[in-house]
Amino acid sequence: MTIRVRQIILRRVPQGVPVADDVEIVQVDLPTPADGQLLVQNRWLSIEPAVRIRMGGSASSIPKLPNYEIGAPLEGAAIGEVVESNVDGFEKGDMVVHSQGWREAAIIDPANPAHRVYQIPRGENIPSEAYLGLLGLQGFTAYAGLFHVANLKEGDVVWVSAAAGAVGNLVAQIAKLNGHRVIASAGSADKVAWLKDTIGVDAAFDYHDGDLVELLEKAAPAGIDVYFDNVGGEHLAAALEVLRPGGRVALCGLISTYNATEPVPGPSNMFSVIAKNLTIKGFLAVQYAEHLETYRDQARQWIAEDRVQYRENIVQGLDAAPDALVDVLTGRNTGKMLVDLR
Amino acid sequence: MTIRVRQIILRRVPQGVPVADDVEIVQVDLPTPADGQLLVQNRWLSIEPAVRIRMGGSASSIPKLPNYEIGAPLEGAAIGEVVESNVDGFEKGDMVVHSQGWREAAIIDPANPAHRVYQIPRGENIPSEAYLGLLGLQGFTAYAGLFHVANLKEGDVVWVSAAAGAVGNLVAQIAKLNGHRVIASAGSADKVAWLKDTIGVDAAFDYHDGDLVELLEKAAPAGIDVYFDNVGGEHLAAALEVLRPGGRVALCGLISTYNATEPVPGPSNMFSVIAKNLTIKGFLAVQYAEHLETYRDQARQWIAEDRVQYRENIVQGLDAAPDALVDVLTGRNTGKMLVDLR
Repeated sequence: MTIRVRQIILRRVPQGVPVADDVEIVQVDLPTPADGQLLVQNRWLSIEPAVRIRMGGSASSIPKLPNYEIGAPLEGAAIGEVVESNVDGFEKGDMVVHSQGWREAAIIDPANPAHRVYQIPRGENIPSEAYLGLLGLQGFTAYAGLFHVANLKEGDVVWVSAAAGAVGNLVAQIAKLNGHRVIASAGSADKVAWLKDTIGVDAAFDYHDGDLVELLEKAAPAGIDVYFDNVGGEHLAAALEVLRPGGRVALCGLISTYNATEPVPGPSNMFSVIAKNLTIKGFLAVQYAEHLETYRDQARQWIAEDRVQYRENIVQGLDAAPDALVDVLTGRNTGKMLVDLR
Repeated sequence: MTIRVRQIILRRVPQGVPVADDVEIVQVDLPTPADGQLLVQNRWLSIEPAVRIRMGGSASSIPKLPNYEIGAPLEGAAIGEVVESNVDGFEKGDMVVHSQGWREAAIIDPANPAHRVYQIPRGENIPSEAYLGLLGLQGFTAYAGLFHVANLKEGDVVWVSAAAGAVGNLVAQIAKLNGHRVIASAGSADKVAWLKDTIGVDAAFDYHDGDLVELLEKAAPAGIDVYFDNVGGEHLAAALEVLRPGGRVALCGLISTYNATEPVPGPSNMFSVIAKNLTIKGFLAVQYAEHLETYRDQARQWIAEDRVQYRENIVQGLDAAPDALVDVLTGRNTGKMLVDLR
């Protein structure tokens, strides 16, 4: 027996921002799951900027995550419901996080590290899609970047860029929950208003509104100690100007470069790194995986105490996924971008 | 009573590499030292690349070390002999390290932090000029960069650039003394031969001899863990390519940028910093001053055991100092560049 499902494959390597013809929705037949496999019906797809890198033709690349092959389905985090299980410990109806998104259903092998399976605890009173946000890699990226990469300490002033994005808004909130002064930047007046009024940052600005260093100096007259970088390029260069001696950069994402077809120069003011004893440390959250469950316990506590704001951009159905990716890459989302396949 | 001495003043801000007319040797009259002051006759001047930054017109600047003023003498590390002392604890004949180089003699105030006075222990059987090298900030910069900035640990493979320079050759030697595999790069075949044959590095190459990443991959087929950067620019970008996951960059100098009149772009491959969990940490040795005496005790031990090679480029007399600076900035020195004023 097979089941017929739709999935999104890469048709060709995009030039710059992806366009509709770079991908294609095709039908495939999935076999019955073999021993050790699950058949999972996807309920939520996570739309993440890193997908763009793996489509190829980008100035960036991820050594341990190869690019998608032409004709093969895209991958990305998803939440699915087990509809058939041939794996001990997994039952029909269980919800799992896994890496085989961009398709309606998938055969999942929990023993395959590439499938990155996490079984959501049964009976928890939390919407499963939180595992693509606060309880997922987005929240953990924010936490690991602040505490394990930037070594956030009492009194530090934090700047986070792309602060209305999926990771950025959680960085702002987690830093605020820990009592820090937080400066947030984003790309529109609406986002800035949301950051100020709902997220509760201490200062926020639209980076289009003037010279970045001047905007930062106005928002943080005494300088900053930690910069959580989701953007790269001119944002990173501006941080090197305003960071105080001993300051740290948690280099998380370089979204300003993902659609670039030519190399994007790095900051020209690297001497500031020497003169002010700065540290630039890059990371992928998976590199800190041993702290993930500690973080999740903390985050569940915040949810129980209703201390975290949560905002999602939800689009309906697989056909909407490619445009949702373009929205994320061009900054049209506020909060986490999800595709609802229920 | 006054004494007439010669000193080198800044005439104008250089454009690019300094030329003879950018400085001028003038005569000045020094007063008798007041209470709390020493009259010091300089014996050795240290010629260091950072002097170029403080002349102005450079793409780099050091926030806490203001540029020299037009008409004012240059500053830089020097070793002098006390010829008249009005300071308790200092006697005629004592040798001191201080910051008032680029002149034949100076009035020195040991209580003034800007004069950075270090009294060389009396009766030590070590040439005083070692305090402008292995026992001075050069040696300590090498040590602090390796151990306190790059957190050198067992088994790490080290690459050091400008490895025939004053700091670079000590980085190579200190790493070798600690049992590490050391890759050294420099700018001429002579320097490469000296590094291989005398300093004893494991591999060395002239960076002019091809693509930097290919040269590094040949010298360190399994990659490197620590890059001690004295150069910046393309050297730093190449390091980001060949560093292994978890690798560290000790950012010490950017000599490739000091004569630049326009900003020099940073590395375009910053995404490697994310993907490989790399750390770029800048430093000035003074930021680790609390470890200086521990280091000096270690270095004196190496000298006693004759375990360190020491090479100096010595020029004679104050008139030779400006050309010596150009030699350092354009890589014509091997080892430490000193001016002998004895």
